[in-house]
Amino acid sequence: MLIVMEAHATAEQIDQVCRAVAELGYTAHAMPGPTRTAIGITGNNGPIGDADRIERLPGVRELISVTAPYKLVSREFREADTLVQIGSELGAAQPATLGGAAVAIIAGPCTVESREQVLAVAHAVKDAGAVMLRGGAYKPRTSPYAFQGLGFEGLRLLAEARDATGLPVVTEIMDAETLPMVLSCADMLQIGARNMQNYPLLKAVGRSGRPVLLKRGFAATVKDLLLAAEYIMSEGNPNVVLCERGIRTFDDSARFTLDLHAVPLIKQLSHLPIIVDPSHASGRADRVVPLARAAVAAGADGLIVEVHHAPAFAACDGEQALTPPSFAAMMAQVERIAAAIDRPLAQPANLTLASPSAW
Amino acid sequence: MLIVMEAHATAEQIDQVCRAVAELGYTAHAMPGPTRTAIGITGNNGPIGDADRIERLPGVRELISVTAPYKLVSREFREADTLVQIGSELGAAQPATLGGAAVAIIAGPCTVESREQVLAVAHAVKDAGAVMLRGGAYKPRTSPYAFQGLGFEGLRLLAEARDATGLPVVTEIMDAETLPMVLSCADMLQIGARNMQNYPLLKAVGRSGRPVLLKRGFAATVKDLLLAAEYIMSEGNPNVVLCERGIRTFDDSARFTLDLHAVPLIKQLSHLPIIVDPSHASGRADRVVPLARAAVAAGADGLIVEVHHAPAFAACDGEQALTPPSFAAMMAQVERIAAAIDRPLAQPANLTLASPSAW
Amino acid sequence: MLIVMEAHATAEQIDQVCRAVAELGYTAHAMPGPTRTAIGITGNNGPIGDADRIERLPGVRELISVTAPYKLVSREFREADTLVQIGSELGAAQPATLGGAAVAIIAGPCTVESREQVLAVAHAVKDAGAVMLRGGAYKPRTSPYAFQGLGFEGLRLLAEARDATGLPVVTEIMDAETLPMVLSCADMLQIGARNMQNYPLLKAVGRSGRPVLLKRGFAATVKDLLLAAEYIMSEGNPNVVLCERGIRTFDDSARFTLDLHAVPLIKQLSHLPIIVDPSHASGRADRVVPLARAAVAAGADGLIVEVHHAPAFAACDGEQALTPPSFAAMMAQVERIAAAIDRPLAQPANLTLASPSAW
Amino acid sequence: MLIVMEAHATAEQIDQVCRAVAELGYTAHAMPGPTRTAIGITGNNGPIGDADRIERLPGVRELISVTAPYKLVSREFREADTLVQIGSELGAAQPATLGGAAVAIIAGPCTVESREQVLAVAHAVKDAGAVMLRGGAYKPRTSPYAFQGLGFEGLRLLAEARDATGLPVVTEIMDAETLPMVLSCADMLQIGARNMQNYPLLKAVGRSGRPVLLKRGFAATVKDLLLAAEYIMSEGNPNVVLCERGIRTFDDSARFTLDLHAVPLIKQLSHLPIIVDPSHASGRADRVVPLARAAVAAGADGLIVEVHHAPAFAACDGEQALTPPSFAAMMAQVERIAAAIDRPLAQPANLTLASPSAW
Repeated sequence: MLIVMEAHATAEQIDQVCRAVAELGYTAHAMPGPTRTAIGITGNNGPIGDADRIERLPGVRELISVTAPYKLVSREFREADTLVQIGSELGAAQPATLGGAAVAIIAGPCTVESREQVLAVAHAVKDAGAVMLRGGAYKPRTSPYAFQGLGFEGLRLLAEARDATGLPVVTEIMDAETLPMVLSCADMLQIGARNMQNYPLLKAVGRSGRPVLLKRGFAATVKDLLLAAEYIMSEGNPNVVLCERGIRTFDDSARFTLDLHAVPLIKQLSHLPIIVDPSHASGRADRVVPLARAAVAAGADGLIVEVHHAPAFAACDGEQALTPPSFAAMMAQVERIAAAIDRPLAQPANLTLASPSAW
Repeated sequence: MLIVMEAHATAEQIDQVCRAVAELGYTAHAMPGPTRTAIGITGNNGPIGDADRIERLPGVRELISVTAPYKLVSREFREADTLVQIGSELGAAQPATLGGAAVAIIAGPCTVESREQVLAVAHAVKDAGAVMLRGGAYKPRTSPYAFQGLGFEGLRLLAEARDATGLPVVTEIMDAETLPMVLSCADMLQIGARNMQNYPLLKAVGRSGRPVLLKRGFAATVKDLLLAAEYIMSEGNPNVVLCERGIRTFDDSARFTLDLHAVPLIKQLSHLPIIVDPSHASGRADRVVPLARAAVAAGADGLIVEVHHAPAFAACDGEQALTPPSFAAMMAQVERIAAAIDRPLAQPANLTLASPSAW
Repeated sequence: MLIVMEAHATAEQIDQVCRAVAELGYTAHAMPGPTRTAIGITGNNGPIGDADRIERLPGVRELISVTAPYKLVSREFREADTLVQIGSELGAAQPATLGGAAVAIIAGPCTVESREQVLAVAHAVKDAGAVMLRGGAYKPRTSPYAFQGLGFEGLRLLAEARDATGLPVVTEIMDAETLPMVLSCADMLQIGARNMQNYPLLKAVGRSGRPVLLKRGFAATVKDLLLAAEYIMSEGNPNVVLCERGIRTFDDSARFTLDLHAVPLIKQLSHLPIIVDPSHASGRADRVVPLARAAVAAGADGLIVEVHHAPAFAACDGEQALTPPSFAAMMAQVERIAAAIDRPLAQPANLTLASPSAW
Repeated sequence: MLIVMEAHATAEQIDQVCRAVAELGYTAHAMPGPTRTAIGITGNNGPIGDADRIERLPGVRELISVTAPYKLVSREFREADTLVQIGSELGAAQPATLGGAAVAIIAGPCTVESREQVLAVAHAVKDAGAVMLRGGAYKPRTSPYAFQGLGFEGLRLLAEARDATGLPVVTEIMDAETLPMVLSCADMLQIGARNMQNYPLLKAVGRSGRPVLLKRGFAATVKDLLLAAEYIMSEGNPNVVLCERGIRTFDDSARFTLDLHAVPLIKQLSHLPIIVDPSHASGRADRVVPLARAAVAAGADGLIVEVHHAPAFAACDGEQALTPPSFAAMMAQVERIAAAIDRPLAQPANLTLASPSAW
């Protein structure tokens, strides 16, 4: 931590700051310069909680932090990559692993619309090599007049699709009230971009212990994302997977601007797996595949992709959904890209499926 | 609504689109052009719910909407300005009105820290002319290690400050679970920027009927903000006040970039009151006052400003809090600016205070 | 300047950095901490030119600067406000001053279209109280097929309008080649937003000595703007006026997002006058006036506003031009706002006009 | 083109608009709706030049364009990919082609610093497989106190490096005045991000006929970039290569946010080659390689990468320069990624080098 004093700060003000630092239990190092004095702080093992108070002392111009504000999520805290296993708690799934050498593909419809739809898509994506099924039961929609999802019925259909295919299921959760229901059906909880800083919800999923897919808010910095993950981990849940899905910028040619630089950056800063959602970033099916290839080439640990067996009739976001054949084509391309950086695609676990009646 | 076809769209594809429009109950108007055909849609009274399906028909390039996606919040739905009255439900407050000719100033600490603090600040801001008290009991903090607020004890202290001063109280609510407690103490519910698209919460405060201060998300367009307000109004609660508080841009010289253009724009698009928060946008006390003046000059119906009797010791955001004397100076300046556009500052209602024991 | 070392930096690496600092003629202060060492640098009188070299030494994680990278434009270099006088070099103008207590209004058409147009608008804006005339002769247009301005004929017409009204003229210059022609006709040179980092052009106008209106690039930070002004001043031209005109953000409800926070910020950082262009930011005439009021309330030293006597027939940007009556109404409002912060509007100098033949 | 009328527009106003459209030589199609009337325009072969005038007629709310504003650069104008050949005009180079199936790598130092440096780097990048040499002689620097390049001496050294290696040379040009000198030494002219909308410069390089590398401005939309290319092509120069190099967003973890979505988008909209600069976007050497892989995976036709034989001593941007060994490693990785999408890396032409004395 570095404290920069105003050019006209008095010796007394500098002293006052040094004393305040000492009172907080740290060591102050005053460094007089030609136009101003800077004061270094040492002795802290992490962020200085009361830093704001120092910032407001008279004569202080700025306070520059040199320690990351997060801890549990940081690569310094844990050097080895975290592997998150999904699907071991609810009976019928073939567990999938996110974060290892293999690149894991999650796919499925934007929204669960019907039994026929979710089963058709689930089988299609499994056949093409996906290791997890995505699908929305509770949908955050910008307009109150847009389709809001099937709710619990959607959850039930997802569970049925898991039983039928063995694919673990990830679905979005929007509030703590529905958490018990979602926990009864979903192998992984998704926190959507709009809820990335919904702290009560982050704490609730943290306490649940269930694996969490945390999507980056579209105005969140990488630091904000890591701090949101810290909320979940600080409740005792280490099973967090991060997801880059595009940020809001002035460019209006895509729904969001996919920030693939975040992938290698997060790999440096954190031990958590990072996957990419090329569907929401692009917003157009015909540009999803190039972004999927790019994400894997950048080092992503996986992808989450929207697939619909009849996009023209999808209840939501159909313009960005791949058809099963185009998804299969994407898988073939992505597999080659992964191979080019010596990573295999994750394979479905080779287990005999538990019978649906088992749960 | 206008449908733009691809340059190479066939006559059959154009026919198919026209038939689909007719099936939805609207009228299609094909307009062949030299390179492509456009198809106009008429007969709709609002947004076309199934527009997505048309967008995905073969040969369709783009679908251009010309009707606003919101209804209840729009100026076309209700031409007269909405006046929101705050403080009439819980006994001890002198009701304040937002949205009329008078410019209403809300002020108070970022966070409730102690009985002494909240009472000192409440009396100070009332003396300087504020008509409502703000204060956080539940705080959304980017870091899990930052001070999270006093919770229910904070609510109780805010209610006590209302009893002592007559100022109605606005406080942030972060989840539906705490709604009953907040309703028992707060005259107005604040939805913070990070929760602007927390739809379950929007619906819950909508159902409560209590006046709502809805802050713009820092990556939300004006349209997004109006749609969030539509969520609240569509649950039957017309008492919504909008708040511009800055958006995230590449400029890092302020915490957020205050978008004052939103003020006259919202006045054109909506009948709801719009106020401005210059404190969070600027992030520095010394630049709050110029932005406060500018906001009133732009036509804002009010301001919400952070004040602390001892900013250097504030538990949160002290660097942006005004002291009581600088707040009083701001009030004097803002009153002159308001007068320059023929608006008075709102005055506290001249009621005898109910005794604290009354509630 | 602070050098932050990697957590795993060796003692030898730290030594190497300290030696490199010493070789550059500065003093290094190593501050060992629990996880990493920081090294403070003192002894520099300004930015450290070779800082990059230190950043790349092994073991260095980050280099944090605490000195502003500009000098001549800074408030620390010159404490008193700079007053820029325009119109004293070419005979017929009544000089205007930017930067003093008075708020100066510059107005005129986006583009010079014809003798009739520019004279009509010039007289109208003078009658309403403007002290300078703006008008484009060379226009930077996003499309090569849009009207590009009248060129030298436009300059000549501007000079004629100055002779007729006494208003000094500001016009945009796009390259050094046309500088002699523009210098023969214009009292002030405008550098447009798209050319804010056109360094050869900045140097050329710097060498000319003629007053310069430097518009902020729409992706430029305040620091970038001040550094661009530093280019002009470092060529010996102190007559620089800065202009905030909106930045590019995700919000698409206005052409650009006007950043009024920049006004008080620049007043703190620099001694140069700062004016605001509400026309280009808003892009719509009906929202220009509220932003003009807000800009003056925020402390701007002036405004530059587009006015056209027949906006529906303007060759460019007509949708944002005020008509003469609405400009006069704006002037009345802006005068009241200025008075509310104890500033008068600048008045035209009360000189007898030189006869046109005098130049 | 679609004209949307205000809800309260009169029949007479609608008539007036239709007549205005007819006067411009187009056909108007009025489509009355329940709340407002829309008017379609057909008969135009491109953008409607006088569209602004219609927008300002009374009763008009909005004007929605459905035709792209550019023509020569569009895929509709020319369906086949353009191949740009570089190096055939100045004797000693082995021509390189941008835009074909092969992925072309351009590499070299940020700035030419010395004969030793540029020759060392040129040989290194050639050995690793680059087919063109980049290097700056005239440098646009944000600060006037930063190193501004060697100027003509730098150009001379680049030409010498071409003679020695056969690599065609691309270098930035900042104004029309230096164009003759740059043309005498450089095989390709680079327009930097800050000059993307410097229209006199675009026209000058357009008239020169020399191949142009046009970098996207960091606040430019894809449409802006294509319009800038249209400026060059409309002067008769079809040899334009586009370059994505990152845009300015709120995210401050990289210098710029690389927008790889622009790659497949530009491939759809335009026939021009599009390459990617991962160095300036990332700003850190350790994250250049993942972005380089991602760019090729997204479909880029090439890369332009900064390489320095001793980054710690580079005069500019050393923190983002790859060393020759890390560049060679990048080439190996990029070649595998390209192979995964069935594209080879471009190979140096197998010509005997002309002797230096030949030019």
